[in-house]
Amino acid sequence: MELLKQRIIKDGIIKKDNVLKVDSFLNHQMDIKLFAEIGKEFKRLFSDCQINKILTIEASGIGIACIVAQYFDVPVVFAKKTQTKNIDGDVFTAKVESFTHSKTYDIIVSKKFLCADDKVLIIDDFLANGCALLGLSKLVKDSSAELVGAGIVIEKGFQQGGELVRSSGVRVESLAIIDSMDENNGIVFRN
Amino acid sequence: MELLKQRIIKDGIIKKDNVLKVDSFLNHQMDIKLFAEIGKEFKRLFSDCQINKILTIEASGIGIACIVAQYFDVPVVFAKKTQTKNIDGDVFTAKVESFTHSKTYDIIVSKKFLCADDKVLIIDDFLANGCALLGLSKLVKDSSAELVGAGIVIEKGFQQGGELVRSSGVRVESLAIIDSMDENNGIVFRN
Repeated sequence: MELLKQRIIKDGIIKKDNVLKVDSFLNHQMDIKLFAEIGKEFKRLFSDCQINKILTIEASGIGIACIVAQYFDVPVVFAKKTQTKNIDGDVFTAKVESFTHSKTYDIIVSKKFLCADDKVLIIDDFLANGCALLGLSKLVKDSSAELVGAGIVIEKGFQQGGELVRSSGVRVESLAIIDSMDENNGIVFRN
Repeated sequence: MELLKQRIIKDGIIKKDNVLKVDSFLNHQMDIKLFAEIGKEFKRLFSDCQINKILTIEASGIGIACIVAQYFDVPVVFAKKTQTKNIDGDVFTAKVESFTHSKTYDIIVSKKFLCADDKVLIIDDFLANGCALLGLSKLVKDSSAELVGAGIVIEKGFQQGGELVRSSGVRVESLAIIDSMDENNGIVFRN
């Protein structure tokens, strides 16, 4: 998605440890007009699919997923990262390792909101080591719902997540795949 | 907002300790069509105001804020609940006590995303004890931006948050104010 790639080049900041800061438009401040273009693109890519639910994970996936959902006319469910008082005991759960926060946590979705007849599209902002996406995929599998695919805004193609998830049989569509990034040489996208 | 009140009556579940579960349409599974109606209503209520930014707090505020933002044609910034590697040291911060999670945490917004010439509308799903809203208000005040007001989806009118925040001079518009709720007698809304 050219508009997205241009925006990453313009406003993305490459930090050490392969961190790409896109917090001015994607995951702290959020450019809702860009999200609408992202929504249209995911609708185009998954136009051949029957989808009745979008699944994402808190926090930064939620905004994108909600705007994307408008183009599919479906509700969004977001996986929560800790068990709160407001969640019933009856949940699907998976363990996810967070690179950003250097810890492992449980993600949960209430069993009320993932059913065997659901056709689920996962939406998330980043795909790097693949842990979050594999965790979300497990929740869908455990619910016996059909996982139609995953729509990712930015994939770090130099990390193993994309390969790992695709080789597990999940269709992954990433709007921008970064093959390399470097403070001196900038960002190289996959064609 | 009648549509919202009817939905709360239909799908809200009253639990002990004054917990109202609205996780089937508001803060776990999210009804995006309802969010669009909420967006139109906040636009109507704040139509007299110049707003150039919406501020919310992770996680359940984000989806609503993003849909609402489309009606104001502005970006969204969400306050984060813990300091992550991806946030620079240069942040506005406030302490917030969470009723749901029984703990106190820091909320932060990067100083890059709140400026003195911003006119900010805060959007959140719930107003109960007011701690989150007071924390968000402090972030706006610390940034010298103008706080235009706060748009709340559900206010628990029997808790002190609404009174606390309004008496501090902040304009608060809540789409549904619950005066009492009880497993036997149901929900009574304020007129």
